[in-house]
Amino acid sequence: MTTTVKRPRLTRTHAEAPLTIAVTAVDEKGQIQEKQIACERPLTLYLNWQPIVTLMTLGARPEALALGYLKNQGFISDIERVESVIVDWEVNSAAVITKEDVSHVEKKLEEKTVTSGCGQGTVFGSFTAGIDDIRLPTPSLTQSGIYALLKNLSQYNDTYKNAGAVHGCGICEGDRILSFVEDVGRHNAVDTLAGEMWLEGIDGGDKIFYTTGRLTSEMVIKVAKMGIPVLLSRSGVTEMGLSLATQLGITMIARAKGRHFLVYHGAETIEFDGAEA
Amino acid sequence: MTTTVKRPRLTRTHAEAPLTIAVTAVDEKGQIQEKQIACERPLTLYLNWQPIVTLMTLGARPEALALGYLKNQGFISDIERVESVIVDWEVNSAAVITKEDVSHVEKKLEEKTVTSGCGQGTVFGSFTAGIDDIRLPTPSLTQSGIYALLKNLSQYNDTYKNAGAVHGCGICEGDRILSFVEDVGRHNAVDTLAGEMWLEGIDGGDKIFYTTGRLTSEMVIKVAKMGIPVLLSRSGVTEMGLSLATQLGITMIARAKGRHFLVYHGAETIEFDGAEA
Repeated sequence: MTTTVKRPRLTRTHAEAPLTIAVTAVDEKGQIQEKQIACERPLTLYLNWQPIVTLMTLGARPEALALGYLKNQGFISDIERVESVIVDWEVNSAAVITKEDVSHVEKKLEEKTVTSGCGQGTVFGSFTAGIDDIRLPTPSLTQSGIYALLKNLSQYNDTYKNAGAVHGCGICEGDRILSFVEDVGRHNAVDTLAGEMWLEGIDGGDKIFYTTGRLTSEMVIKVAKMGIPVLLSRSGVTEMGLSLATQLGITMIARAKGRHFLVYHGAETIEFDGAEA
Repeated sequence: MTTTVKRPRLTRTHAEAPLTIAVTAVDEKGQIQEKQIACERPLTLYLNWQPIVTLMTLGARPEALALGYLKNQGFISDIERVESVIVDWEVNSAAVITKEDVSHVEKKLEEKTVTSGCGQGTVFGSFTAGIDDIRLPTPSLTQSGIYALLKNLSQYNDTYKNAGAVHGCGICEGDRILSFVEDVGRHNAVDTLAGEMWLEGIDGGDKIFYTTGRLTSEMVIKVAKMGIPVLLSRSGVTEMGLSLATQLGITMIARAKGRHFLVYHGAETIEFDGAEA
């Protein structure tokens, strides 16, 4: 279900930023092979011309990443007041212009210096702020449906050569993959999908969020903020992630591969329809 | 090769911080199973009592993580002047006390707000600072040696149930694994190993750094700063990572699994001794 939103104007200049580049490598037999490798770029985000952060990214969807990052970090909250997103790879920048009042940004940047640090820390204190207001719908899943989705995800990985995509994330509906992104880090991948959903006015209530990564507190919170009530991961969960999923009412399915999975929370939302394991 | 360093006093109070906790989950057949899941904790780092960052971590080696983080971010540089590292899980804190002059920290925290932001961004500008001074020894590897190490890594994963350790990193010597760590994020895992080597006075020159993650610019720089001239990854590389590895003279082996690998740089440091592929 999508709602009509006034969309910001997206401008990408100097867009010759290839996603991959060809290089030569030597295999285990000592033979030279030509390989495509991913390009990684710094992208400095500006909010109303104020520099906010420099992210290292594979650069596939810089507009979505910029919006998603700023939204998830609490810098902006109203997509309809975002006027434009300008990406210029020549200066490795993404500028978000909004009519929203962002005077609190300066203070927020200072706070983050103490509460979360820079470069790597996850904002813990302010990160959990606002989760009490989140209300998620109750999902309705089936064992066979999960199998079908896992099969499609497996084929997707093969098709798009994502075997090395350690940090792949996707938005799914039923057994279909609506959007999949990989990036240098899990944070970027999730933020990109958050930005994409926000931009497109996509409702998360009937979606499943898939990740190859572990279901940590940060993952659970971000996906809850995207309005998605089901988390599916190839990896495991952490105790804090589980605790938050329980609090938020998220169905948490982990260690999911082939015809195996473990439901850490929300098993009552799944109909075990006896599909052969 | 280790050198004798004056070691800081490590104190861990309220250390009942279990690494895993038992919970119940429902498998694909609808049957209840008891599982051990990892605990994830916020850890606030203090440097001479000034708060620096809050990291989410699995908490296995908080002292090493604290030291490695602060070293890699350029806050401290002399292990012999570190007096103590105090970890108190009751208040989720790790305090590093040093005799080193850290008056530049305040300014550094401000800078980071602009150049890298907080929470997730990799410090790009200041991150590459100082790499021109790095001199790494030329490694000497063999195809059979790499196979032996990969076999041990594979068995290690099985033994320690690290199948879900998407962010596992290890320090290796020859075909032996000296130290392996997994954490919530790759940054933490690398920082923990950096801190451990620094604390133990371990020289990186004859070591191999293994990671399950992609060899990005950040990974290459951090490992170079640890003095290690060989990178080994199960995943792929990025163009910027390769460019830096070339500049730094690091042997970069990727897509390594079983008896297959790709050498993106430094093939001349490997003797292809005809072990059967």
